[in-house]
Amino acid sequence: MTNANPVTIETIIQRLRDFASERDWDQFHSPKNLAMALTVEAAELQEIFQWLTPEEAAHLDPAQHQHAAEEIADVLLYLLRLSDKLGIDVLDAAVSKMAKNALKYPVEMAKGSHKKALGAE
Amino acid sequence: MTNANPVTIETIIQRLRDFASERDWDQFHSPKNLAMALTVEAAELQEIFQWLTPEEAAHLDPAQHQHAAEEIADVLLYLLRLSDKLGIDVLDAAVSKMAKNALKYPVEMAKGSHKKALGAE
Amino acid sequence: MTNANPVTIETIIQRLRDFASERDWDQFHSPKNLAMALTVEAAELQEIFQWLTPEEAAHLDPAQHQHAAEEIADVLLYLLRLSDKLGIDVLDAAVSKMAKNALKYPVEMAKGSHKKALGAE
Amino acid sequence: MTNANPVTIETIIQRLRDFASERDWDQFHSPKNLAMALTVEAAELQEIFQWLTPEEAAHLDPAQHQHAAEEIADVLLYLLRLSDKLGIDVLDAAVSKMAKNALKYPVEMAKGSHKKALGAE
Repeated sequence: MTNANPVTIETIIQRLRDFASERDWDQFHSPKNLAMALTVEAAELQEIFQWLTPEEAAHLDPAQHQHAAEEIADVLLYLLRLSDKLGIDVLDAAVSKMAKNALKYPVEMAKGSHKKALGAE
Repeated sequence: MTNANPVTIETIIQRLRDFASERDWDQFHSPKNLAMALTVEAAELQEIFQWLTPEEAAHLDPAQHQHAAEEIADVLLYLLRLSDKLGIDVLDAAVSKMAKNALKYPVEMAKGSHKKALGAE
Repeated sequence: MTNANPVTIETIIQRLRDFASERDWDQFHSPKNLAMALTVEAAELQEIFQWLTPEEAAHLDPAQHQHAAEEIADVLLYLLRLSDKLGIDVLDAAVSKMAKNALKYPVEMAKGSHKKALGAE
Repeated sequence: MTNANPVTIETIIQRLRDFASERDWDQFHSPKNLAMALTVEAAELQEIFQWLTPEEAAHLDPAQHQHAAEEIADVLLYLLRLSDKLGIDVLDAAVSKMAKNALKYPVEMAKGSHKKALGAE
């Protein structure tokens, strides 16, 4: 049997709206506050890696992996909530940015020598 | 005519893999480095809002709005790249976290008085 | 009676060296790791303010104030540790940057209308 | 000849007050905004290191070193400005935190095996 209701970005955005509305938390969800919360969650994710060697960081143990999954979820949730409040479609924005990055970092020039990695400044 | 190939999270993840591979940038994309880059992008997004009043932040002008869209894209791209490297499904992780948040912040107890906003710690 | 040994930046830097050395923690204190830890501490400080209104943020209650003092201390400690590892004198660097900012933002041009606040980019 | 007016933390705090006052920037320097700016500067400092190997990060070239000094200065300036606005003495706070860390991480227990590095949570 196929999954008739797969989870999508849109589903999650709607659930986040309902979650905030039911708790009367919209008052706290200003773009400025959400942008702050997003950075805090990104820092919590980063904290998992900060004292690890590159090798350890590439091979998290199960507890660290689960912790990383939860922090990744938090980053995504705040990112979607902020985008929703600003009226920005994250997938459209991502596609546009990838096109821009492809122009900015042509394959031949960027090969191996460049360190911007995704082209983000 | 319907769009036969809508953009999905999976599409973007695959394009990011190709983008890095073509440029020989996989060597820089360790989980530790990607987690750092993610925080830096979140901070760049936050920077747009830092000197704005809450009112100004809720009504970005077109240039600020475009800037926010690009930084939101950067956050998403690094988040997907990091998740891919860690073998974490971001949508699954988000759904699990929302279920956890719903248990942690029951509607009646959380209503209006709580400030964690999405339940993330 | 005067305090014969007032605390200075130099005193703290030396104590941090001893603290790390005694615990064999120098191995973790690479500049890259310390820079990561510094951002994490700054984010923890920021987290205190994220759901507060500007008014609430300007009038922390005693528990929040104590929490802020501890996070401010953490930021300073990592900043001094990182600077020490890089051979950078933080006070000299601050004085140079203030001179640069004064040139970049002349009083008459910057007055009230500019929002970079300390001139930092 | 000795330097009759060495730079101190107090000198810098006073200069920052004057700098903001002359430019009518106090209106932007709320604790919430300054905390945001501090994190942004810490992220800019971190960005210098993000694609470097641990070895490269420990041996910055002159341009990177100068860049790091400027970002370190920015972090210190915002930290001092924020502390001033909150009425927190950064050196006192640092000394208290170091005392707390020394109790929390006794030498024998922490030796080599612990990764919190400065004891900050």
